[in-house]
Order: sequence, then structure tokens, then C-alpha cells
Amino acid sequence: MSLVVQKYGGTSVGTVDRIKHIAERIAAMQKDNHRIVVVVSAMNDETDRLMELAREISDQPDQRELDLLLSSGERVTIALVAMTLKEMGVEAQSFTGRQVGIFTDTTHTKARIERISAARITTALEHNLVPVVAGFQGINEQSDVTTLGRGGSDLTAIALAASLHADRCEIYTDVDGVYTADPRIVPTAKRLDRISYEEMLEMASLGAKVLQDRAVVFAANHQVRIVVKSSFTEGPGTEVIKEHKEMERNAVSAVTYDRNQAKVTLIGVPDTPGIAARIFEPVAKADIIVDMIIQNVGQDSMTDVSFTVPKDDVPMAVEVMNRVSQEIHAKRVEVMQNIAKVSLVGVGMRSHSGVAAKMFVVMANKGINIMMISTSEIKISCVIEEKHVETAVELLHKEFELDETTSIQ
Amino acid sequence: MSLVVQKYGGTSVGTVDRIKHIAERIAAMQKDNHRIVVVVSAMNDETDRLMELAREISDQPDQRELDLLLSSGERVTIALVAMTLKEMGVEAQSFTGRQVGIFTDTTHTKARIERISAARITTALEHNLVPVVAGFQGINEQSDVTTLGRGGSDLTAIALAASLHADRCEIYTDVDGVYTADPRIVPTAKRLDRISYEEMLEMASLGAKVLQDRAVVFAANHQVRIVVKSSFTEGPGTEVIKEHKEMERNAVSAVTYDRNQAKVTLIGVPDTPGIAARIFEPVAKADIIVDMIIQNVGQDSMTDVSFTVPKDDVPMAVEVMNRVSQEIHAKRVEVMQNIAKVSLVGVGMRSHSGVAAKMFVVMANKGINIMMISTSEIKISCVIEEKHVETAVELLHKEFELDETTSIQ
Repeated sequence: MSLVVQKYGGTSVGTVDRIKHIAERIAAMQKDNHRIVVVVSAMNDETDRLMELAREISDQPDQRELDLLLSSGERVTIALVAMTLKEMGVEAQSFTGRQVGIFTDTTHTKARIERISAARITTALEHNLVPVVAGFQGINEQSDVTTLGRGGSDLTAIALAASLHADRCEIYTDVDGVYTADPRIVPTAKRLDRISYEEMLEMASLGAKVLQDRAVVFAANHQVRIVVKSSFTEGPGTEVIKEHKEMERNAVSAVTYDRNQAKVTLIGVPDTPGIAARIFEPVAKADIIVDMIIQNVGQDSMTDVSFTVPKDDVPMAVEVMNRVSQEIHAKRVEVMQNIAKVSLVGVGMRSHSGVAAKMFVVMANKGINIMMISTSEIKISCVIEEKHVETAVELLHKEFELDETTSIQ
Repeated sequence: MSLVVQKYGGTSVGTVDRIKHIAERIAAMQKDNHRIVVVVSAMNDETDRLMELAREISDQPDQRELDLLLSSGERVTIALVAMTLKEMGVEAQSFTGRQVGIFTDTTHTKARIERISAARITTALEHNLVPVVAGFQGINEQSDVTTLGRGGSDLTAIALAASLHADRCEIYTDVDGVYTADPRIVPTAKRLDRISYEEMLEMASLGAKVLQDRAVVFAANHQVRIVVKSSFTEGPGTEVIKEHKEMERNAVSAVTYDRNQAKVTLIGVPDTPGIAARIFEPVAKADIIVDMIIQNVGQDSMTDVSFTVPKDDVPMAVEVMNRVSQEIHAKRVEVMQNIAKVSLVGVGMRSHSGVAAKMFVVMANKGINIMMISTSEIKISCVIEEKHVETAVELLHKEFELDETTSIQ
């Protein structure tokens, strides 16, 4: 008898009809003698609706209150899903983050899970109940509600799978797996049968919204077997597993893009030792995640320092930079919002050279200007103007022959 | 420095603009050196929206899950109100039922408060914070969320006022006090300056939706001074206090009505001893509150037993009655939904006779049939066809000269 943690995203529980649909799946799996723990997100757009209310009140709403506000969405869903299962004759019970025992640190809106007790979940499973767990939320030591950041329900599911030693964690979403590129841009994109944690992590960080990046790291660290599947269609989905040899056949596994980026530039920075620390320490303290950084050396011992942040963090980043700018006597702060990041990902890059060079040539031939570049062992990212995103993704998908891949193994 | 508990109902927090409006009032009062505890309901219609989702799933949704579902509405409001206050520079913090320490019994959807710890509220007040408390909710001994029944936020506010020994509890609503009749039906209806707990209790039970009846009982038992006020206009409102002599000038203080009633009749009941217990014990066990009961003796030792219940409880009542009907070999169960209850209330009835007789004459003269009657020391209620409600209320208001009252004291 296997134990499976299933996570259903916002579109999968977007209406009562969809909830009934997934409840039927859960009921069928339970009859097949699987023990199931269900983790759900807030219904379709509910988090956005609540965020909108908060924004009407403040540009930077109080973080503790924001967490309480946003966490209410998942509470609605667990109640509705548990109700539906019971109505179908499946014994089920809802559990909030607090009731599961998901204890986090005190960093509101981006809390880290410190430990999971899951005592009530274990008891529920022993009594043949299907536990329905609110994703995205935990409580801190003051017993206040915290949330795990955007996509945090993935983390809840994977952390719970690790804590319960589940056989696997199934992530149900509105696509039937991980693709070589976004099929809305590249119609010939192919579903990947398998992908490594590292590749998945790069893709998650790069804006392929299938899995939260922190959830992938957690899964890799605890060796949780993930399967990404569609809640609307049948199919094997994409397995996310440990890297192995056969994965390296192709240099590139997928092309991704991320429009949720903005570039913040501090202009006229005195080029003195320790200046980078004085700029980026306050940014880190404000819990803003900086992606790329470049520094252009100018005249008169002055430089310009640019970095990219998620668009959501721009107001906070600008506030911090205005303060820093005064302190270090820089000239001014500039923001560029209409940028995007296009990336190539593949564990095969480790053994194939020339991927970067080929990428730059492709872009140059189309007259697409590259503003920033960053690389890791298994990915190359370029920041370009947002209007070129689709052309770039299509071209790269073709140049690296991803149309012909059916699987990376 | 007085301590005031203020409760704001759903319409008072129905939009972000209204929340800003009440936040300004709270801020102004705090500047006047009052210590304030705020209790809020779910935003306008939010409870109905959530209930509708539950109804799409089941006619009788699981009660534990229903409580979790419904309690999410108040969580949204406390977060938004606390956020708004902080944005205005008023130090505030939200507290859920659990965080306040509102411990209830395990009767889901109609839980009773067993004790309130309020430790975090006391600490918050000591630190000059405005605590913003979620009404309507508590937790039971299993640490599961319970709710206090419709209008339960009033009970939260009054129980908290008692627990904190507050100077008074202000109930903010969309009307500026308690009236001699519903002003939408009787334009000449007058606001009452003062009313006794007992009269308020009768009016609450009778469908005047200003205050929850259980909240009034609690206030009377703990001598909590209540003031009912409008959150939209200024004005003294209506004070709800202990009865005193001057209140008895008029026989009748107000006319009320309640459309939320249905009549369930068990037809062809064998007229044997103990039959009433066999009918009403299962009803009580199902936590259905029966209001009036009548029994018509028929032929052949058979009787018909009718009782009224709130319209919401009809499905449950019918289910119970179908079971009882089989057990006691009754003929069938009938439901009549289009009824309403019209009542006269007044502590003055204790010393004035003939009120009931006059009421019946007024109804008879207009050809309005009285189906059921019930009386207490300070009220008389008649069940009539729903279509006659407005005529009856207008007539009674006129006959008992309530137009001329400006105050019952």
C-alpha cells in the first residue's frame, strides 16, 4: 500500500465542479488501495483578489496581516474539498497549517519551514481518513500565521511527503508535464518524460511556473520523487528525479523565459572598495532576491551598478536604493521594467561546449541586444528587451533541435 | 481612560472604502484617550458567498468543514482592518478566535463559548495596540475551528467586553439604533433611546436583526452595557440596559416581524402518552431550534403536530421528521414556507392587560388569519401568511400609538 501526497494548484480547484472532478480521482485512487494526503492551493485568482484588496489599502501592506489575509484562501479550499470527499462517501478531514504542525521562522510572506510535526496527519491516515491540507501556510513561534511565498503549496506538499516518507509527491497542474519550451510560444515543444532536480530547479528559478524553486531544492535534498501531471487529462506526466548518465545526450533540455523581471540601476556610484557590500547588504536585509548583477565602469572613478529583481519587489528595491544612494553619494536610481530573461537549461551542458557561443550568435543574427548574461553549470540566461521574448524562445528551440526530442533520456 | 469594545458588522466593513471610514473613527477615538478593542464580521455577503459554495457541494455539508469555511471570512476582514489602521499610523494587530483564546464546546456551527483567555488582547492593550478581533469564531478542545451561529460576532464582542471588564460594548450596524418598527415598512417608526435587555432579547429572537439573541442573554447575565449605533452616521444610538421603572409607561415598545420561519406539520400522529417527547427529542438532538408548537386534536385518536423552525433548518427538520414519522406510524410530513411571525414587545405588558385581545381584533378586522400564537410576559407573537406581514406591522404600529413615542423612558 503506497502513500502518495497529491498537490492540486489553483486552477485544479478553481470551481466547485473542478473540485468534484479531483475528488473523484482521489476517491478512485483510494479504492486502488493507495493512502493519499491531499494538499491544495487557493481557488483560481483568489490570492490575487485578496492581494488586490491589500493593495487598495497600502503599497506595502503590513506583512503579518498580509500573511493572515492570504492564508484564508487555502482554508476555503480545504473545507470545500473535504466536504466534497465526505459527500462522496470518502472519509476526509481538513487541516490548516497550524493543525498539521508546519512550524516556520518568523519571516512573514517568505517563511522557511523549520519542522513539521504531522501528528494529526499520521493519526488521520491510521484511521483511513484522507487528510486535506492547506498549502502555502504555517505558523511561527508566536503562533502567528506565516506564508511560504508564491507557489508555497508545492513546498508544503514536498515537505509533507518527506516528513511522512511518502512514496511520491504528485503535483497536479493545468499542463501535463514539463516541456522543452512554453507550448503557447513554440507549438512543436515536447513533453519531457524525465528531468533532473537541478534542471527543474533552474527552470523553476527561470520562470517556468510548474514548480516553486524552493520546493525543488527541498525535494532534491530529501530525495522526494516528484511527478508533475495534469489534473484535467490522463497521462504519465514528467518525473523529476536524481540526475543520471542518460540525461546528457542533448546539450540543452529546454528553453525558458521569465517576464517577471525588472532592472534596477544605481547610477554614478563612487568606485571605492566595499561599495558592493554597502549596496547589497540592505537589499538582502529587505529579503529581496537579486538575480543578476552587472557593474559598468565609467569615467572619474564612477560606476553604474545594475541588478535584476522580480517585478513585485521593485517598490521595495527602489525604496532601499534611494536610501543607499544618499548614503554612498550616488547620482540616481533608474528602473527598467520592460525586460525579460531567456534561458537554456540542460545537464548536458556540462559535457558539451559552445552552447553559450551558439546562443549569442543566434541572438545577434536577429538583432536582439543582450543586456545581461549569467551562467551556471547547467544553464545560460540572457536579459533582453521584453518585446523580443517570443522570437528568441522560438529561435533557440529550433537551433538546439528540441523539436526532435521526445525525451531527454 | 475608558475601555470600549466596538463591533462592526458586514455592511460596515463591506468595501475597502468603508474599512477606511471606520478606521478613521477608531483612530479619532483612540486620540480621545479611549482604549479600543475592535471586533469585526466578514465583509458584506462574504458569508453568503461561502455558504453558497458549500450548498453547491451538499444540502447538508459536513459541519466541521463548514465552520472552517465560514470562519475564513472574518480572517480576511481583521487583516484588512489592521492593515488600514497601521497605514494610518495607528498601531494595531489582528487576532483570530484561536489567538484571542475563545474556547468553545464542540457543537459545530452553533458553538457555545466556554471561556475566554484574552491574554494576548490584554498584552496588546498594555502596549497601546488596537486589537482587531475576528468575530463569530472560536476553537474547541481538539483545536478545531468552531463558529457561534449567525450573528455570532455580536456574541464575540459582548463576551470579550465582559471578559475585559470594558466600560461598554458598541455595536455598529447599518441602522442608527433600535426602532419601534422596521422603518422600511413603517416610515413613522421612531428610534428608541433606551431598551431593556429583555425587550432586546425578544426583539432579537423575533427577527429584528440588530443583535444576536444569545449575545443579548450574555450581556444581561454579565451586565454588559450595549450601545447600538450606525457606522455611517453620527448619533446617540440605542442603549440596551437593565430594566427600570420608567420603561413601563407604554404597554408596547415595538412591533417586529420575522419572515425566516417555516411550519413543519406531522399529520396523523397516534395520540398516545409520551408522543411529544418522541417527536421533539430527535429535533433537539439535531440542534434545531423549535419556536412555536401546536397540536390539533383530530378524529380516531389522531392529532396533527405543527412547529415552526428557521427556514435554514427545514431540510434537516424534514429529514428528522421523516424518520420520526416512520417510527411512530404517523401519516405524513408537510412543510409550509410562506409564513411569517408578527410580534408586539414591551416590558409594559406586565402592567397593562388587554394587549393580546387588541392585537387579535386588529388582525381579525383586516381578515388576517392567525395560525399560531405564543406569548411571554413581555411579548405576543402571531404566525400569519407572509403576504400579510406589512399590513399587520403597519396596523399594529398605529393601533398601539408607537408613532407618537420618541422614547420609551
